[in-house]
Amino acid sequence: MNALRLFIRNGRQIRPNIRPMSAQAGPLVDLSVDDEGIATLTMQRPPVNSLNLELVQEIDKALDEAAKNKSKGVILTSSSKSVFSAGLDIMEMYKPDRKRVELFWTSLQGLWLKLFGSKFVTAAAINGHAPAGGCLLAMSCEYRVMVNGKFTTGLNETALGIVAPRWFMDTMCNTISRRQAEVALTTGKMFTVEEALKVGLIDETATDKADSIEKCKEFIERFDTIPPLARALTKQKIRGDALAWLQKNRQADLEEFLTFVTNPKVQQSLEIYLEILKQKSAKK
Amino acid sequence: MNALRLFIRNGRQIRPNIRPMSAQAGPLVDLSVDDEGIATLTMQRPPVNSLNLELVQEIDKALDEAAKNKSKGVILTSSSKSVFSAGLDIMEMYKPDRKRVELFWTSLQGLWLKLFGSKFVTAAAINGHAPAGGCLLAMSCEYRVMVNGKFTTGLNETALGIVAPRWFMDTMCNTISRRQAEVALTTGKMFTVEEALKVGLIDETATDKADSIEKCKEFIERFDTIPPLARALTKQKIRGDALAWLQKNRQADLEEFLTFVTNPKVQQSLEIYLEILKQKSAKK
Amino acid sequence: MNALRLFIRNGRQIRPNIRPMSAQAGPLVDLSVDDEGIATLTMQRPPVNSLNLELVQEIDKALDEAAKNKSKGVILTSSSKSVFSAGLDIMEMYKPDRKRVELFWTSLQGLWLKLFGSKFVTAAAINGHAPAGGCLLAMSCEYRVMVNGKFTTGLNETALGIVAPRWFMDTMCNTISRRQAEVALTTGKMFTVEEALKVGLIDETATDKADSIEKCKEFIERFDTIPPLARALTKQKIRGDALAWLQKNRQADLEEFLTFVTNPKVQQSLEIYLEILKQKSAKK
Repeated sequence: MNALRLFIRNGRQIRPNIRPMSAQAGPLVDLSVDDEGIATLTMQRPPVNSLNLELVQEIDKALDEAAKNKSKGVILTSSSKSVFSAGLDIMEMYKPDRKRVELFWTSLQGLWLKLFGSKFVTAAAINGHAPAGGCLLAMSCEYRVMVNGKFTTGLNETALGIVAPRWFMDTMCNTISRRQAEVALTTGKMFTVEEALKVGLIDETATDKADSIEKCKEFIERFDTIPPLARALTKQKIRGDALAWLQKNRQADLEEFLTFVTNPKVQQSLEIYLEILKQKSAKK
Repeated sequence: MNALRLFIRNGRQIRPNIRPMSAQAGPLVDLSVDDEGIATLTMQRPPVNSLNLELVQEIDKALDEAAKNKSKGVILTSSSKSVFSAGLDIMEMYKPDRKRVELFWTSLQGLWLKLFGSKFVTAAAINGHAPAGGCLLAMSCEYRVMVNGKFTTGLNETALGIVAPRWFMDTMCNTISRRQAEVALTTGKMFTVEEALKVGLIDETATDKADSIEKCKEFIERFDTIPPLARALTKQKIRGDALAWLQKNRQADLEEFLTFVTNPKVQQSLEIYLEILKQKSAKK
Repeated sequence: MNALRLFIRNGRQIRPNIRPMSAQAGPLVDLSVDDEGIATLTMQRPPVNSLNLELVQEIDKALDEAAKNKSKGVILTSSSKSVFSAGLDIMEMYKPDRKRVELFWTSLQGLWLKLFGSKFVTAAAINGHAPAGGCLLAMSCEYRVMVNGKFTTGLNETALGIVAPRWFMDTMCNTISRRQAEVALTTGKMFTVEEALKVGLIDETATDKADSIEKCKEFIERFDTIPPLARALTKQKIRGDALAWLQKNRQADLEEFLTFVTNPKVQQSLEIYLEILKQKSAKK
């Protein structure tokens, strides 16, 4: 417990050397603000923006900075040409260190509470695949523009033998109809760009990344004449039930995740899945 | 406190002379019942049916009368040629008298509970603009027919720096999808007739007021063969969660409103808004 | 009370001889399993699969068997050429024996909890009319294929002077939008096949029963690559609020039903309705 506290206190740069660091250089996110005060938060953890503890923490910190700078809006996007974010990093769940995986999950909870309930306007420029946690991040924003292409998005957790937590489901039900969400969640459906647009999982399509950023900016500019406090409180109120659920159930939700992730069958599934990924990687 | 009780006891004709009475003659609402037992409740507070305390009370009283006469349905409409209702009267919120504004808000709560949960069938013949509180009244009915024209409707509270209360939001989510409601509420969107029809904020369009009344009657007649008690209890049950929320939270909701309305920044916004209205009025 | 216990203990074959048994031979349901492990549960209580106590209990028992055999999915259908199920047997409600009607209702609650929350995949091949309780069974499945024809489906309880219970409403709101559900429930709307498809009350249409079964199988096969436990828990989680409501309110829901069914006016309505049915039957 002390070790955990120490770990938290010393912040995200200290990483228990349980596993080798993935090869990467430079910061995990980039935050740039344009003349209008619209921030672009770019995830840049190659190759696929897998959400590990550090990336989650860096996105969280960038959102704080955007809030501090009174950005009128934040656009979430990716530096990759084909992936917005591949979702939660399976390495955080495979043979996990107890303290790290606890911190990972509570950090993810915290990030979602911050993003889903942010006072500033949020939009996702989905410039590539966005499965699972990637889809969650996009759905937590207030607007979604997806680049046309052979990209897909959806909460496909069941396909990996995982049960999406309640707040993932609430986020999806905030975006598409309950009926569509049930079918999507149980079948682990990945929507093509066209399908996502039809069902309302995205709001617009774009020709390329620049176009998607531009359309996100247009959405954010819709609020130029809206008093910001009223806007923020209105957003938080209509999203209030979902936010309140996780705020009240963070511990239970963490325990559910820990029970799940320490289940031998789940570990076995993850092992098989990792093996498949390795083979795919080797073929390339 | 005694003053408030006195005020309530003596009824709505006694208005504390805090502000000049608006120029008006005749009753604020008209209730007429046709041969079939369908009542038409016409709001007639020129120029734009702003919902002040007296109009709210008169609508409430007219609904009681319709219930007493066992009307099989009530159609809500306006005597104005271009406005259904402009929403809450800003004069009730600008530099308010504490006791009056309390009574104003609790009366509005009571009217909504009565209209949204009425046993008789309700329909709105929206023959003009219906922003904010005007849209709330229309959405509280079970059916909406809007007259084609350059009219708009929506909950545009944020545009005025106001946060729509939870029960306004619940009423909108009872009508259109949660996703559409979130975008509409945060952006303060006013829907054109065509947009309102597409999104389901209205059910039908009409060529003129007479046509809208006729279509509302057709909706009410759909229930001619339905046992009224089963119908009423079914309506109250499916609307039950929203009704129960306000019933349980009337005091908290009132306090939230009072905190809001006595906020100096809000008063400042209202002052600016009133100034704009005056200038617009002077130009005409 | 002892009599009730005895009645329950001795199981469903003992039927208090309050009313003549309807003429019928053979089992009330048929459960067949194909090579793939997909079970077809056929209701066969002529003439219209009215849900009396025994049919409810037999469907319940068949679902248990399907679960025991680890069927990967269950298709619910009917042996009739024109009726999927006509809904609750009015004879269970007309001049009811207190103990039997209590058992009837608690059995129906139990069946719904089992079907709506089943771990295995469920689909309804709606090969005929499916009003009221028939529609409830279909909506409790995860997928609905309806045979083209002059068939209709919907929760038309109000038309009979009945108020659909909360869990019927929740089931409908799990399938179609809240707005559509409110209009459908209050008007007692019976949807044509085309209307049901448009509003999402069914997912697909079929040319005949075989085709509807085939399409249900295709839906069930979508899960062939989805780990079954994750799928089951995901389904139960997204349907969790509705399931939890009835689990927590079974007694109150029973009492509401008993109060309703023992109301003299309701008995009078049922008597009139039965008289109409008799006259219709005589004309044929």
